[in-house]
Order: sequence, then C-alpha cells, then structure tokens
Amino acid sequence: MSDTLSLLLGHHSDRSFRDDPVDGAVLDEIVAAAHQAPTSHNAQHVSLVIVQDAETRRHIAAIAGGQPHIARAPVFIAVIIDFAKTGAALTLHGKEQQVHHHLEGLVAGSVDVGIQIATLMIAARASGLGAVPIGGIRNDLAALNTLLALPQGCTAVTGLCIGHVDQPAAVKPRLDLSTYRHDERYSDKDIAPAIVDYDNRLAAHWAAIGRMEGESWSASIAEFYDHDYYPGVAAAFAAQGLFTEKE
Amino acid sequence: MSDTLSLLLGHHSDRSFRDDPVDGAVLDEIVAAAHQAPTSHNAQHVSLVIVQDAETRRHIAAIAGGQPHIARAPVFIAVIIDFAKTGAALTLHGKEQQVHHHLEGLVAGSVDVGIQIATLMIAARASGLGAVPIGGIRNDLAALNTLLALPQGCTAVTGLCIGHVDQPAAVKPRLDLSTYRHDERYSDKDIAPAIVDYDNRLAAHWAAIGRMEGESWSASIAEFYDHDYYPGVAAAFAAQGLFTEKE
Repeated sequence: MSDTLSLLLGHHSDRSFRDDPVDGAVLDEIVAAAHQAPTSHNAQHVSLVIVQDAETRRHIAAIAGGQPHIARAPVFIAVIIDFAKTGAALTLHGKEQQVHHHLEGLVAGSVDVGIQIATLMIAARASGLGAVPIGGIRNDLAALNTLLALPQGCTAVTGLCIGHVDQPAAVKPRLDLSTYRHDERYSDKDIAPAIVDYDNRLAAHWAAIGRMEGESWSASIAEFYDHDYYPGVAAAFAAQGLFTEKE
Repeated sequence: MSDTLSLLLGHHSDRSFRDDPVDGAVLDEIVAAAHQAPTSHNAQHVSLVIVQDAETRRHIAAIAGGQPHIARAPVFIAVIIDFAKTGAALTLHGKEQQVHHHLEGLVAGSVDVGIQIATLMIAARASGLGAVPIGGIRNDLAALNTLLALPQGCTAVTGLCIGHVDQPAAVKPRLDLSTYRHDERYSDKDIAPAIVDYDNRLAAHWAAIGRMEGESWSASIAEFYDHDYYPGVAAAFAAQGLFTEKE
C-alpha cells in the first residue's frame, strides 16, 4: 500500500498541539498543495486567511464557542468562499455576478471549501504535523468575518488548526461500511441495528483510550440535530451579500 | 518532499479514461480511505453510491449535460448528503431532526461532500488511477436522485469518475497565489491585474498543450456566473425534504 493510502486510512483529528511554530517553508508547501486542488468550473472561488497571531487565535477560539486548541496550535487557517474574485472577473466583462445569490453558488462554494480542508489536512499530516477541522467558527460567523476583514462576496465557512502534536489522537471507528457504501442504487434498509452497534463500539473505543464520554453517538447526534445547530449562519451569509435571493 | 505532497502539488483532473474495470480490491481501499475521512460533529451524514453499470453511467452522462467521460470511465461515485442516517439516530431517541431544514445543515453537508471528493480523488490517484469531480450532476439533480433511489433526507451533490487513464492531463496553472493566500487579514486589493495575467497564462497553457480554447478564463467565468448556473438545485433539495424551512 502507498504511503498516501496509509495516511488516509489512519486519519484522525489532532487537538493536542504544542505551541512551537510551523516552519514557514513547510506552511508554504501545504498552502501550495491546496492552491492546486480542483474547484467547480475552475472558478477558484476559495481563499485562505492564515492566522498565526496569538491574540487573534485566542479571539477565534472564543468565537468557536471556547476551543482551547485554536489558541494553542500555532496556525489557524480560515477557508473562505470567495465570490469577490469571480465578481471581479465579471466586472472586467461589464457583467454583474448572480450565482452567489443562489443555492447552487453556496453548494459549489461549500463543496470547494471541503476540498480545501481535506487537501490542507492531508498535506499537513504528510509534513509530519497534526490537524483538526473547525466547523465551530459557524457559532459566530459574523464576528469572524469582521475580524478577518472579509469584503462583500466572501465568508469564512470552516477552519483548520495545524501544528506539531504532543499526543497523536487514536483512529476513531466509523458506522458500519454498509451504511455508507451503496452499489448501483441506495439501499434503503433499516440502519437502526448498525447505529446501536456503533454506539457500543464507540463506547468501547472511548473506554479503551481512557476517555469516558457521557453520551452514546446517537444520543449526541440527537442533541445536536434536533434544532438549527448554528442559527446565525444564514444572517452571516446575507451580511456578506451571499445567498440573498431565496428561490 | 513526501510522495503525498508531490501527488497533491501535481493535481490534475483526468478525463481520458480507458474502459477497463477498476480492480475490486483497489476500489474497496479507495472507499475505505474516504470512509475514514472526518465529518462535522462526526455525524457521518455522507454516503456513496458507486455506479459501475454501463447503462446507468450513460444515463448519468446525459443528466450531467453530456459528459462522455462519465460513460467511458468504469466507475462513477455519487457523493450524497445523507441526513436519513442522522434522522434514524434521532428517531432512536424519540426526537425529530431539524438541522437539515436549515442553511447550517446544508453547509455542513456540502463541506463534508467536498472532503469526501478530495479524499476519493487523492486515494484514486495514489492507486495509479485518474479522477475528475463532476459538479455537472447538479444540471438535473432531481433526475439523478430518482435514478439512484435516494430516500427522503438524501441528495447527491457532486460525483467523481475514476478509472485507468490513457493520456494523463497536464497540470493547469492557477490565479496568482496572492489572490488566494491572505495572512492575518484579508487583503482587499484590486485583483484585476492578476486576472488579466491569469487569462494570458492560461491561454499560453492551452496553446502549449495544443488545445485552442475560445475564451479567456475571465470570459468563461463571466458567462457561467451572470446567472443561477444550475437553477434546479433548490427544488431538487426540497423534493428530498432538505432545506425546506427558509430563514
């Protein structure tokens, strides 16, 4: 098996960062890898804001609802949907951009943010660093967009901490493959037994690594997803001029 | 530099597929890599439908607006936002899922689809195969969701062709790094010169590889983005019970 496949199969999110800096040349290479990643229509409507200033990282840790690893890891990267760049391309041709007002623009942009996050994570891990994606910035996206001085047409979506790791995290089990892989057509069978099985396996995993979490996986998901988890997202997008015309 | 970084820096989207099949064990490993990729809250609200049937691939090529490489590549993978799985977790706890009605659910799901797409592409390329993401399925998403028999709570978002490659594609240049990488704060400078420079560099690239494209990059983007590029997306999501309550 190639080193790359081993790295992917061993994916884990690290949070146990040391505070020593990431070498500038290493960071440049990680950023270059993500810069080359594909985008919808090659529109390149994504940008990065790389935060290394400790005070700004402490502020972002608070915005994300109190995530101490954001303050500790030496590098935080905010991944931005950037329709300001494509808007400038339209302006050059005397046209006005419309796609960013519609769901298609938001979906294409969010998918491209995910491609960036994965590429940055994989490049960081291939460079011997640890990484963890931070969706929690959507807890107060408007505050983050202001902090990063994002212009109209741009919003942060997801972030990433990277740095040297003290205690590498364990590889976490997943729901059974049969709930994830479908061949030819979606198999609409009852997955309740697979969920109960996963609740048990994940509890055994936590016990094995000495972390006693209070709730089962399904109980946690039930607590998160019975409401709009980050209710400020739509207003934060609208404040940036994104997704303002609803279908 | 590690093999993984070289692979990322050499990213290119392949479309010149041979029609010989992908080995089943190789495909299993690519899928296992993506199964281990991170998801928002570890909610695992993503699934894959792997299509190898030639007739179905011809149908999907038509749905995507006529993309012959979908019919030719032996494997097409549809990446699904799957809130049916998390919905089943809530049902086990006597609760009703709400997050999938809101923008947060759509953004979290779309980002996770992007993480899947990148991981599948990178795993395929590490296995000696080529790959190309297919956002074009959103041209007629409702038809694809029906074809793949997706239940309520699920929609396809982006697909991926993988297979052995006849003529590897060249690495395409990108907009200047200064339009993409921002340090500490977003730099809101005029990027029109960088766009003109990129139009010229991309035209030179097409000429160098013997492809004479008619339009510059900025002209293409202006043509795509002056309207809602795939206007059926919102209705297709709503038909699957997704994003039905607008903020």
